[in-house]
Amino acid sequence: MTENDKSSQPKVEQDVVNPWEVQSSSDKGVDYDKLIERFGSSKIDDAVLARFEKIVTARGKKVHPFLKRGIFFSHRQLDEILTLYEQNKPFYLYTGRGPSSQAMHLGHLIPFVMTQYLQETFDVPLVIQLTDDEKFLWKDLTLEECESLSWENTKDIIACGFNPEKTFIFSDLNYIGSSKEFYWNMKRIEKCVTFNQVKGIFGFGDSDCIGKISFPAIQAAPSFSSSFPHIFNGRKDIACLIPCAIDQDPYFRMTRDVAPRLHYRKPALLHSVFFPALQGAQTKMSASDPNTSIFLTDTAAQIKKKINKYAYSGGRDTIEEHRQYGGNCDVDVSFQYLEFFLEDDEELEQIRKDYSSGKMLTGELKQRLIKVLQDLVALHQECRAKVDKAVIDQFTRLDRYKCCEDFPPLPQSSGKKKKKGDKKQLSESVQEMKVGDCANGKS
Amino acid sequence: MTENDKSSQPKVEQDVVNPWEVQSSSDKGVDYDKLIERFGSSKIDDAVLARFEKIVTARGKKVHPFLKRGIFFSHRQLDEILTLYEQNKPFYLYTGRGPSSQAMHLGHLIPFVMTQYLQETFDVPLVIQLTDDEKFLWKDLTLEECESLSWENTKDIIACGFNPEKTFIFSDLNYIGSSKEFYWNMKRIEKCVTFNQVKGIFGFGDSDCIGKISFPAIQAAPSFSSSFPHIFNGRKDIACLIPCAIDQDPYFRMTRDVAPRLHYRKPALLHSVFFPALQGAQTKMSASDPNTSIFLTDTAAQIKKKINKYAYSGGRDTIEEHRQYGGNCDVDVSFQYLEFFLEDDEELEQIRKDYSSGKMLTGELKQRLIKVLQDLVALHQECRAKVDKAVIDQFTRLDRYKCCEDFPPLPQSSGKKKKKGDKKQLSESVQEMKVGDCANGKS
Repeated sequence: MTENDKSSQPKVEQDVVNPWEVQSSSDKGVDYDKLIERFGSSKIDDAVLARFEKIVTARGKKVHPFLKRGIFFSHRQLDEILTLYEQNKPFYLYTGRGPSSQAMHLGHLIPFVMTQYLQETFDVPLVIQLTDDEKFLWKDLTLEECESLSWENTKDIIACGFNPEKTFIFSDLNYIGSSKEFYWNMKRIEKCVTFNQVKGIFGFGDSDCIGKISFPAIQAAPSFSSSFPHIFNGRKDIACLIPCAIDQDPYFRMTRDVAPRLHYRKPALLHSVFFPALQGAQTKMSASDPNTSIFLTDTAAQIKKKINKYAYSGGRDTIEEHRQYGGNCDVDVSFQYLEFFLEDDEELEQIRKDYSSGKMLTGELKQRLIKVLQDLVALHQECRAKVDKAVIDQFTRLDRYKCCEDFPPLPQSSGKKKKKGDKKQLSESVQEMKVGDCANGKS
Repeated sequence: MTENDKSSQPKVEQDVVNPWEVQSSSDKGVDYDKLIERFGSSKIDDAVLARFEKIVTARGKKVHPFLKRGIFFSHRQLDEILTLYEQNKPFYLYTGRGPSSQAMHLGHLIPFVMTQYLQETFDVPLVIQLTDDEKFLWKDLTLEECESLSWENTKDIIACGFNPEKTFIFSDLNYIGSSKEFYWNMKRIEKCVTFNQVKGIFGFGDSDCIGKISFPAIQAAPSFSSSFPHIFNGRKDIACLIPCAIDQDPYFRMTRDVAPRLHYRKPALLHSVFFPALQGAQTKMSASDPNTSIFLTDTAAQIKKKINKYAYSGGRDTIEEHRQYGGNCDVDVSFQYLEFFLEDDEELEQIRKDYSSGKMLTGELKQRLIKVLQDLVALHQECRAKVDKAVIDQFTRLDRYKCCEDFPPLPQSSGKKKKKGDKKQLSESVQEMKVGDCANGKS
């Protein structure tokens, strides 16, 4: 946001949610129902969940707690992805990360945990974009520094347990200079989006650099399967599902707006809530203040200390009051963290009851969370330690995607030249269309 | 130019000169002296010419007619390039073309003829950029169409006689997706240039697409030797001289503005006047009207017909008047074309005298021009016909630049860590500097 844009905004108490800023005035954090309305996405309601459950249980899989607990709460066209899956038609997953610091924190894990679950459940290819070029443009870092952050973060991502046969992790600073097809899609997207549009969507201003202004095309490009010919064998028609935090939605609203003009499929989306800072949902996790979050590099002792010292409590001031009135799970950060990371639904429900009734004290709640997080972080560190050069190669080299064979070229159209009268029919067939341009860049 | 920009301009009778529009209200065409003043470049005056002549004649070479006749009339830092040459220090040439139509016309040849002369005279590497991505963004063409125009134009460029050992011809749509170094330089430049700046320099507006807005970084990047590691062995310090028509200067004003902030050398420039349309300097050559120019695909008969029928004459209405008052070389297109393409200085001077005095008639002048152009175009077509796949490979493959050996890595600094006090000294040494970024994109 430029200052100009800020000053022109009406000063209403509306949550601010964009890729660079998330702010809420409520101690319960962002109002997600209002956000669904504002963004025009769809709620993951009981009907969607029931259908999802039916499909995955029929194949012996479970519904991930993130879905059952509303951590992924919003979607766009998830139903179509499920239909494709039912019809045995292919789709792929796309998620990403802006590698801003060497140490990732718990919040950064959320989209990767969900994506890993989705890949395992549906057995589909996955592309993971590290937007190190974005970090270069937004931060006071050199390209070399941004690239090296990418590689550090790659190890953390790999430690989340993705399928090396079907996962391609790439950094923009490395991949774009080696992929004509990705670059061509960037250009196609850039031709369809005006400065006015990125101003409206992202709040860019006249004093922003031209790199920032054209960056959204780079985050949009992986939504189209033709950007990865080494995975999809040149196919342009493979559907894409993007699990991400909802602050990334502006990029994909833009992408979905552009897609039909390029005769590409609109990507589907799964949106997560934000992971709260230790100090509560109203505050922000800050890379410069290590006490606002748990890092994946923290020791067991650091985790214990941070939770005990900083985790905002919904408990009462005295044990007597707590026993009498109970704690408030809605604002208690320790309870919220358990909602993210305690897998056992029954135990979580029991904790909710016991803490709300006052049977469970804040110290006991924190004790349980400390154990959960110590185990999780220790396991992550163990997995990460095993990620060496050879393992990284498995996820980043372009020449090893055998799943390419899963995407045979589409049959050519009948061979006869289409007559003029066939024009409409042709334009309805995504597969057959020439990937064109937006005439004159007007939209 | 967007409409907004147009309306905010004062309606003075000033020549319009930018990469997309050249307009003059005078029948003598653009006032180049005024342009030098407005653009802040330097005139190629007698002193510069004398120094140039001294240097090249000492090495048994001649001064090109384009320089003697003021066709290349303006420069930036040409003197520094000459000093480098005298000191046996390296530099390279960079020119380019936006491949907008399959057939190139005579005007398109001017920068290539000059560049070929400079390469032969100074025996230096040359990079030629085909901005097919620019054409995609500005025109109603697909990427595939733009790329194929690039390859057609490549044949015409090769036919100009460049040294295959030292010339790299590349199309943006091909090279950028295969060159990390080029892409990194694009990002570095994009970070240093704001929307406000490209608005001021190029007249971009809010309704222009984000591809156009960031395009200037792509035309700037070849000015820096590090964009071509396969030629310059990773060296960042090789000076660059850009021969181009003066309408391209805005790109390189921007480039020269950015260069010091990236610790790169500013490129030097040589600017040419515009090649007039057959109908006169006030009108525009138009790709959609083949009768406004001579194409390199024209037959001898077409050339004869076009010159006789369309070349704007500075002659008098009747032979009697012409004999009495003489013709006007300043507006006569045939004479102007001879200034570009008749090599013999003495003959040109004789024609000027005879035509001005009335001794030579318009028909005779046109006759001479027709012969010159028929020979030139026939020779071009002959050379172009010899350009096959193998020849194109010689100019476009990345793995064949032996001149890389001419650019040994620079000696590392002494090995001692510089003390704080050495900071100033370090910042004066272009070679040793880390290629950084513009902090926060502010400039």
